[in-house]
Order: sequence, then C-alpha cells, then structure tokens
Amino acid sequence: MDIQALVRELKMKTDSKIVFLIADGIGGLPVEPGGPTELEAAKTPNLDALAKAGVLGSMNPIAPGITPGSGPGHLGLFGYEPVKYLIGRGALEATGVGFKLGPKDVAIRCNFCTLDAAGNISDRRAGRIASEESGPLAIKLREVKIPGVEVFVEPVKEHRFCVIFRGEGLGGRVADTDPQKTGVPPLDPVAHDDASRKTAEVAKQFYAQAVKILAGQPKANGLTMRGFSAAPHIPSYEEVYGLKAAAIAVYPMYKGLAQLVGMEIVGEPNTLQEEIDVLEKEWKNYDFFFVHFKYTDSRGEDGNFAEKVKMIEQFDAIVPRVAALKPDVLVVTGDHSTPAALASHSWHPVPVLLSSPACRPDGCQKFGERETLCGGLGQFSAVYLMPLALAHAGKLGKFGA
Amino acid sequence: MDIQALVRELKMKTDSKIVFLIADGIGGLPVEPGGPTELEAAKTPNLDALAKAGVLGSMNPIAPGITPGSGPGHLGLFGYEPVKYLIGRGALEATGVGFKLGPKDVAIRCNFCTLDAAGNISDRRAGRIASEESGPLAIKLREVKIPGVEVFVEPVKEHRFCVIFRGEGLGGRVADTDPQKTGVPPLDPVAHDDASRKTAEVAKQFYAQAVKILAGQPKANGLTMRGFSAAPHIPSYEEVYGLKAAAIAVYPMYKGLAQLVGMEIVGEPNTLQEEIDVLEKEWKNYDFFFVHFKYTDSRGEDGNFAEKVKMIEQFDAIVPRVAALKPDVLVVTGDHSTPAALASHSWHPVPVLLSSPACRPDGCQKFGERETLCGGLGQFSAVYLMPLALAHAGKLGKFGA
Repeated sequence: MDIQALVRELKMKTDSKIVFLIADGIGGLPVEPGGPTELEAAKTPNLDALAKAGVLGSMNPIAPGITPGSGPGHLGLFGYEPVKYLIGRGALEATGVGFKLGPKDVAIRCNFCTLDAAGNISDRRAGRIASEESGPLAIKLREVKIPGVEVFVEPVKEHRFCVIFRGEGLGGRVADTDPQKTGVPPLDPVAHDDASRKTAEVAKQFYAQAVKILAGQPKANGLTMRGFSAAPHIPSYEEVYGLKAAAIAVYPMYKGLAQLVGMEIVGEPNTLQEEIDVLEKEWKNYDFFFVHFKYTDSRGEDGNFAEKVKMIEQFDAIVPRVAALKPDVLVVTGDHSTPAALASHSWHPVPVLLSSPACRPDGCQKFGERETLCGGLGQFSAVYLMPLALAHAGKLGKFGA
Repeated sequence: MDIQALVRELKMKTDSKIVFLIADGIGGLPVEPGGPTELEAAKTPNLDALAKAGVLGSMNPIAPGITPGSGPGHLGLFGYEPVKYLIGRGALEATGVGFKLGPKDVAIRCNFCTLDAAGNISDRRAGRIASEESGPLAIKLREVKIPGVEVFVEPVKEHRFCVIFRGEGLGGRVADTDPQKTGVPPLDPVAHDDASRKTAEVAKQFYAQAVKILAGQPKANGLTMRGFSAAPHIPSYEEVYGLKAAAIAVYPMYKGLAQLVGMEIVGEPNTLQEEIDVLEKEWKNYDFFFVHFKYTDSRGEDGNFAEKVKMIEQFDAIVPRVAALKPDVLVVTGDHSTPAALASHSWHPVPVLLSSPACRPDGCQKFGERETLCGGLGQFSAVYLMPLALAHAGKLGKFGA
C-alpha cells in the first residue's frame, strides 16, 4: 500500500505544529559485553521525561538489515520511500554543498584526475590534491561557456567537485566517464537514452574546454564524471502533507535534502543553541520544523563512544527550550544508527520518541534502545513516521465512513 | 504480497470453529496522566483469564497513523484490504440501513432539500427536517416508476435517505448533484464513464418524478444525490476462506457489512445476552461467527470514559458463555480504537486477544493496551488477523513442500 498517497488524500491543514528533532546517527551499540549503548550511557533527563509521558518505538529506515546513507535515511524520515525516490549521486553531491537543484538541472559528481603526456589517467584522484588547491581550480572551470546551457561548478572537497548543467531537454542518464583504472584515457560521455543525448554532448563540450583550462596543472590536469543525475522529482511537503515546513540545520547536505522535499531553509545557525534560537524566532511562521544535529553521527563515525555520549547529552540539554514552545507533536529520533563500535552507519533500528497529548503512553521510563523494544509504536518502517506524527497532530481525516 | 490470495490457495474445510467477539471501538486512551485506558480500568476477569492462556497483540486496522471508519475497520478485520475494497458512500448508506445490495445495484446517498419558487436550493438539508416527517416522504418516493429498473427507497434519518436502482448495465460512477451551496438548482446527474451513462439517465428520471411527488411540501420539496456507488465486488467468506459464516449483530450497519462479505445474518437480537443466545442456538450450523457489540464505540464517541468502562465489563461478563461452547479459536478485539478522551475513532492500535489450544502463550497476564505491547502476535496489520485465526483453527495447509 502506498501510505504516502493515502496520507495525501486524508491530510487536513490545521493550526497544530510538529517538530522533528533529529540527532543524526543516534542509534548505537554497546562497546562492552552487557554494557549500554551511547544513548543508554548518556545522562538524558529531559528525553527520559518525554519518554515517560510519551510513546517510544524502534524504526527501520528502509527495511530490516539495510543500512542507509544520509540521503535515503532522511527521505525515509520525511515519509518518502527511499527506494522509490532515489536521489542520484550527482544530485546528492550538489545537494551536499547546498546547491538548489531545479527541474531543468543535471548534476554531475566529478573528480579531478592526473593525465600523463599520452592523455592516459595516471592518478584517478589527482594525487589526493588538497582542498585549498582544488577549490580555486573548480571555480576556474566556471569559465566554460556552452551555448543554450547554464554551467555551474561547485568545489566539494579535495579531488571532488560538482558540475551542474541547466537547460532545456537535458535527461540525466549518461554513463560515467571514469574508466575505473589507470593507464587509459577518460571515456567519452555516452547517453543511456534519447532524452539524454543532448546532455552527453554538453558534457563532451564541457570536458574539452575544461582540459584546456586545466592544461599544465601539476596534479589536476584532467577530470572524470562519476555520477550524472537529473534533479529528482519529489512532491513537496506542501503538496503531500499540506504543511508549511521549515528546516534548521548547520550542514549544507541537510539543508539540501530538506530543500529537495520543499522545506524552506531558515536561519544561518552555527551551533545547536543557535538552531533553537532560529526555531523560537520562526515559531509562528511554519507548522512543521526539521531541526538537525550532526555531531552524534560524526562522533559515531569517528568510533568515539565517549564523545558521542557527550553529544547526546548536549542534544538532551536543548530539549526543554523546544518543549517550552509547546509543539502539538514532538518527535525525537535519527535518520539511522551510527554505532561508535562500528565507526559507520549501520542497519540497527533507530530509537524513536513521540511526545503529544494524543499519544497512548506505553509504560516506557526512559529513552534508550532496549526500552523502545516494548514501546507503543512497536518496530516500524520510517515511512510511517510522518503519518503517525500527522495523526497525533490531528491533521489526518478518517478513512472511509 | 496478497495475503488473502495466499490464504485462498491454502484454505481447507475442517470441523473447527472460529468466533470473533468484536467490541466496536474497544481501544482507548487514559484520561489522566499515568492513568489506565478504558480497557485497563475495566474489571475483566474473564478476558484476563483468556489473555493468560492465550496470546495478545496490537493491531493496526489499515496502517500506522490511519483512522478508519467502521466500514474499512470491519473489512480489515474480515481480512479484506480496506484500500483495495473501497465501499462507496452510497453503498455504505444502503448497508447501514440493512439493505442487501446485489451485483446489479447502484446505491445513492440522498438528502431532502428545500427549493424556492425559482427552483434554486434554499436549504440543503430541508430545514433539518425531523425523521418522523421525512420517513413517510422517502417511502412515498417508492411511487417512482422507471421502465427496466427496480427502484428502492429507504429512509435513513432526518434529511438523509437512500435510493437504490437495480437493473442491467448500471455503472456506479455518476457525479454528485449537490452543488454544495444554496441559491442555485441541483445539478443534473452526469456520468463519469460510458458504463454509467444509463445510471445518470435513470437518476434524471427519478429526480423528475420525485420533485412532482414532493411538490408543495413545505420543507422537503427537492432532493440532492450525494454519493453514487455500485455494490462493491467483494469475494465471499465461502470463496476466500471456505467458511460458512454467521453474523450476529444488533445494529443494521454491521449486518450490512457482514452481508457484503457473504456472511449470513442470524437471529434478531436486541441485547448482547440475546446475541449469545443466538450464538448458542446456531452453534452447529456454522464454522465462523462474527458477534458484534456496539456500545463500547458509542460511549467512546460520547466522550464518556466511565460508561465505556461499564460497557467493557458487560462485554467481559458474556465471555464464559462463549468459552463454554469451546470454539477452537476465540478472537476478542475491535475494529478500531474509539478513546473517550478524543470522543471519536482514532488511529491507535487495537488490542487483540487470540485464545486457542494451538497458540503460543506469551507471558501476558491480562487484556489491556500496555500488556499487548509484549504480546506474541506483535504489532500487525488487521489483514493478518484472519490468516492467524485460520492457522490456529488448523484450516490452512502448508505453503510449498
């Protein structure tokens, strides 16, 4: 069943407000046998108080066993089936640097590379060129001019940069030009379908002009194109849920993802406290708020259990400011688990807390992975999180008579 | 996966008997922080004894967050996907007054309205005409004669009545004639597809004769048609499950819904005790019994926690009589939650109890929402209830070798 289609039919605009407080990668694992996870080890009096009065659950971002990247993880949170609404690597790269993709755009994930005198690739990553060197080169590539097409180039990091073509009739299905080995030249861009022929042509012209601009560079005298994608067609939060949604985040990637689903980016916060300042300031202007906290995931990816615990405690500390705004529904969760024990994203279910006057309390006493196992929301797929939030906010009509 | 199709392949006719004891809207919410729900507050020694020996679960009628009306709620209980087997408003209205819809029928939900001297609607609900006045007028409309078509008219309540056309070639897709405002005349009936053109013609003729019959009436001198629907095509219990099913209910709506899925309506009970008399009387004649108790929902919709508690206790009191018949599978649940705290149907999962010699007990000690969270059936969609009941009754063969 297409739950999003059903919700779209039943949605109602009301005055109630929903807040999603997202601690990226919050789910974890113990580092000692019989020991607590990061969330269980953290002192979280505010989250525990919400858990007591609210309802807990355990969320699979995509399906049992499947580890999501941040893109699919967030789409799932927002109620968009991650397998259905695929965000191509080019689009994700552009989103990641905060580039706002439009319907006429094709985004390409690119690598600087090193070409030898014969024009063959000798280093696929341009000798791990530093961002300080590659950034200006990427910006120089904005000199490329192609009739009928707007060209954008954005530095990402080290050898990575992003190219966006904007114009009529540009399909996104062009094969990668990276031959995946050294000693051969980059491949010509080849279209997978008729709709993308023009894009392949444009990419060829871009390449030809770019290598001229880069000629003589010691490391980055060539480039490969490693992921073409058209902007994904994602129906907006307004269309699907009838919500005027705001996104408050520090990192560009999450602003980009929120924009892809039609949220408005508000404020320019640099810290979690500043994010809550923005939330307070914008409270009257929206009926849905996505507030993103990155460092739980970062410390998890570092493999640093103790620091991830501290980040969770920092996160817990701002909960009273959010609760004071009296949202009708407050959801606290993450996009996936990032256990320090694994130093990477994992498939383990994500703990969810839903606080609302309309929830059915479940006897859970605190917010932690083990406690959620007897939570009232049970174990569920992330695509049901928005329907549950909307229901608790009184924003869904009854199905059938 | 189409679970109903799978069950249909695997079903076996056996002597075992299944009883569904349905307390409409049984699921609830606390009215005090940390307090019990209606079911948890009620003294239910009999249900608790069944829960101890049996297995509990928590059922979503349609999907997490989705609140069902009684129609979809019951279809889900019966194992028919509510989104797939939609019952149109006309069909539900007819069902609601106990009209037995057949495959050649189109049912129309109608309102009496008031027309001014120019033929424009001045009151869309005929001045909230009383049932005592409108009932006889609806019956008078049975005088309408249309060649080749049988016409039925059933009073519903106040300005509402139901019209059924029975004949060959009558599609159900005709647009409403209610213009949704006053100061304009009713719209002509317009078909949405070729298959419904004849129906639109018939509706036009019905309207023309009806306004002549109603001419001069002070309040109800006109009518609008507010929901055309063909009888839904629902494969019967016999076809799908191989079950000879009986329905025992007091209210016409539930008799109608049961009939839609091919159950036989038995008895004319007026109270719950009388329903159990019928159950005992008919025990030998069927292998599936649907017994419906309305007042848990009614008191919930009234917002009356204490009275809903009493209704649950009344419901609990008849359990020994049912258990004494020794059904192979006894299921106790509801079609949805109707918390007194919300005074309406809600999306909260419905507690389920399954009692059978073949069940795997789960350590639960009593029947209540919180207790079900650790129940052996877990949290599941209603469409799996019939498969579970059939399995426990030994009525499903193995899938594959």
